[in-house]
Amino acid sequence: MSRRESINIGLVGMGIIGSEVVKILGEKSDFLSKQVGTPLVLKMAADIDESKREALGDSSIFTTDARAILESPDIDIVIELIGGEIPAKDYIQQAIQHGKHVVTANKEVISKHGPELFSLANEHKVGLLYEASVGGGIPLIGPLKRNLQINNISAIYAIINGTTNYILTRMEKEGLEFSTALKEAQDLGYAEADPSSDIEGFDAAYKIAILATIVFHTDIRPEDVYHEGISRIASQDFRYAKELGYAIKLLAIAKREVPTVQVRVHPVFIPDDMLLAKVDGVFNAVQVEGDLSGKVIFYGRGAGAEPTANVVVADAIHLAQNINLGLSVKPELPLDVPKIIKPIEEIESRYYIRMTIADQPGVLAQITKILGQHSISISSAIQKETDRTSQSAEIVIMTHPAQEQEMQQASGQIEKLDVVKEISNLIRVEG
Amino acid sequence: MSRRESINIGLVGMGIIGSEVVKILGEKSDFLSKQVGTPLVLKMAADIDESKREALGDSSIFTTDARAILESPDIDIVIELIGGEIPAKDYIQQAIQHGKHVVTANKEVISKHGPELFSLANEHKVGLLYEASVGGGIPLIGPLKRNLQINNISAIYAIINGTTNYILTRMEKEGLEFSTALKEAQDLGYAEADPSSDIEGFDAAYKIAILATIVFHTDIRPEDVYHEGISRIASQDFRYAKELGYAIKLLAIAKREVPTVQVRVHPVFIPDDMLLAKVDGVFNAVQVEGDLSGKVIFYGRGAGAEPTANVVVADAIHLAQNINLGLSVKPELPLDVPKIIKPIEEIESRYYIRMTIADQPGVLAQITKILGQHSISISSAIQKETDRTSQSAEIVIMTHPAQEQEMQQASGQIEKLDVVKEISNLIRVEG
Repeated sequence: MSRRESINIGLVGMGIIGSEVVKILGEKSDFLSKQVGTPLVLKMAADIDESKREALGDSSIFTTDARAILESPDIDIVIELIGGEIPAKDYIQQAIQHGKHVVTANKEVISKHGPELFSLANEHKVGLLYEASVGGGIPLIGPLKRNLQINNISAIYAIINGTTNYILTRMEKEGLEFSTALKEAQDLGYAEADPSSDIEGFDAAYKIAILATIVFHTDIRPEDVYHEGISRIASQDFRYAKELGYAIKLLAIAKREVPTVQVRVHPVFIPDDMLLAKVDGVFNAVQVEGDLSGKVIFYGRGAGAEPTANVVVADAIHLAQNINLGLSVKPELPLDVPKIIKPIEEIESRYYIRMTIADQPGVLAQITKILGQHSISISSAIQKETDRTSQSAEIVIMTHPAQEQEMQQASGQIEKLDVVKEISNLIRVEG
Repeated sequence: MSRRESINIGLVGMGIIGSEVVKILGEKSDFLSKQVGTPLVLKMAADIDESKREALGDSSIFTTDARAILESPDIDIVIELIGGEIPAKDYIQQAIQHGKHVVTANKEVISKHGPELFSLANEHKVGLLYEASVGGGIPLIGPLKRNLQINNISAIYAIINGTTNYILTRMEKEGLEFSTALKEAQDLGYAEADPSSDIEGFDAAYKIAILATIVFHTDIRPEDVYHEGISRIASQDFRYAKELGYAIKLLAIAKREVPTVQVRVHPVFIPDDMLLAKVDGVFNAVQVEGDLSGKVIFYGRGAGAEPTANVVVADAIHLAQNINLGLSVKPELPLDVPKIIKPIEEIESRYYIRMTIADQPGVLAQITKILGQHSISISSAIQKETDRTSQSAEIVIMTHPAQEQEMQQASGQIEKLDVVKEISNLIRVEG
């Protein structure tokens, strides 16, 4: 074991997070070198945008050719922050093949290709760390893999998309409609011009696939995750939720019911006294339920340059400490629990149903008859907001636990009733 | 690097947590061995109570002589769970000197002697892990040391004593008086027959000393921690708190204002919309504020056999994985930030003051005059509950930020006024 003169980092991708990494490595240089025991040096930095060169103290380390970093014999740790699947996945793969340790914040690559990349890293005896890929600045993957590893985890309930949580919070607190809240989030930079990855639940699906893989020791990929977005939620859903004692959140849920697992992302009603119901704005929170630990919650900033860059650099420090101490890397554990995904149709849930009906006698009887035929019983119903002009009324039904498939069929039949104008929303209830 | 045939554990202390460790090592044996890559074997177990022998599957591994374990060449990892300072500290020391890795849940030993023991462990190239010493089953020390290590942490606000949080929750929700809630906690096994370690804040002081040492890189010991207990809090304090929009919690607080640190445990008023205000019953929560991460909160079961044993075994697994992979141990980082403790008299805080006064004109004027002389201004005041018989009234004052020393002096002078019967409570306000 011989101490290196320095541990050298190559950064690929100088966007918002990458630029913050450059800043931290510069500003905290003395502190970081002390933590590592050896100078930690940003040796090369790549971006396709030539203008990023100016962000570097020493512009000579800049390159537009990422491959120069992946193949450089001088680089010990590659930090990949370009995001997206292509070419990031190839870059990570090549870095590993060239014997580099890798740190990434790339949820898409890890969720789609993680198991293959971990095997490759094990083979090349390098580390591949990805704490920043889920939950931004919240320590999550480390604690799950290390401190909670001996638990049988039965469930994860996670608010892991800050954009949608911001929108839902604004709708709840200010009575905004979805489109207004989305526009506001876009103006503030919390939502992208094309917001579909956040709004439709893709982003949360990547993240819950990563977490579920870790805690269930099962190879869960994004295509195993059922997902629905939040665009159908209207301001009156929040009014009813409040009246009924619930909050509305976009939750990423992973549950194990041996031998099956279910992994899904969709809006849910949760009781307003659950801590997750108090997680507002761009904050994220992940609730984990273990057989020994009981309920554990991790809360913090799920996005943003500083929180995310912070855990990226912490991962790099961890690897640098290992390199410097001559330690090899602890391999990822095998994913040896067979994958049996429970399809969404087979789950059991309680439901909130909001519909517009004709304001005339006997309508509720027709609806409850259909529900009864599908073994769905009602726990409560509210009828409100009769519209005299159209002679229609809005009705909200909360059910007892029912089969998803039955609920979907019943919902289809109810919508065909002459006296039902529309089923405006159907939202699952958890907790 | 050669794989061992087995990694052998010696357990010292078979109390509630120790017995749960025995159970987990037995019931999860296959899973744990898979995680480690080699069988993990409970090779010896010691307790001074001979009857504990019966709790072991193989009673031949039992001994009443802990030293037999500390000195045994067959033992790789010693788990110390006897608690208390003596003889636990000597046991840990001897185990390290005999080249054993050590896992402990002992907050008293780590807070009082941690730095010396870590140095000794570094010298002998063994690990000394203590995740269970703070926050029971909540991953805390690992994430702080690993994932949040590059942050400048400015503050920790922690609910880290489940007994007092249970009592305060019962007082708040049910309107119980302190003595009734304490009795209930004792009946339920949440408080000990002699509850002073919890009630007076000693337990929380040990724990916050450990956390502050880690995040401030400064050698903080229990004697550096100012602490007050909860026994003066009365049911009417909760009524006023509710009216004013606050919750009452026993908080352990560590703050850095370069170059000083302040570390203290006492009851506080916190705004009832803070997440910490929602942490009820025996649950614990630790809020950390970092320059990069922003606010991060860890929440879970701070005590109890299963949650605590869970992180003890996770620490043992971590060490066993390292041993099995031929890795050496990452040493604790040096505590190289000089210790300059800010005495409690020098802190600045807002205050809640509840007092009983004579129900006559001009009293408030006399009180505010004294406060004014000490540069303390009032943000709100409520007068209530006039007792016609005694012609006394209860008054509550909330102040703007003031110097603790000034507040203490003012309080002393106010109490000497003829028109003031008593200052019933003086509680700091945070958040």
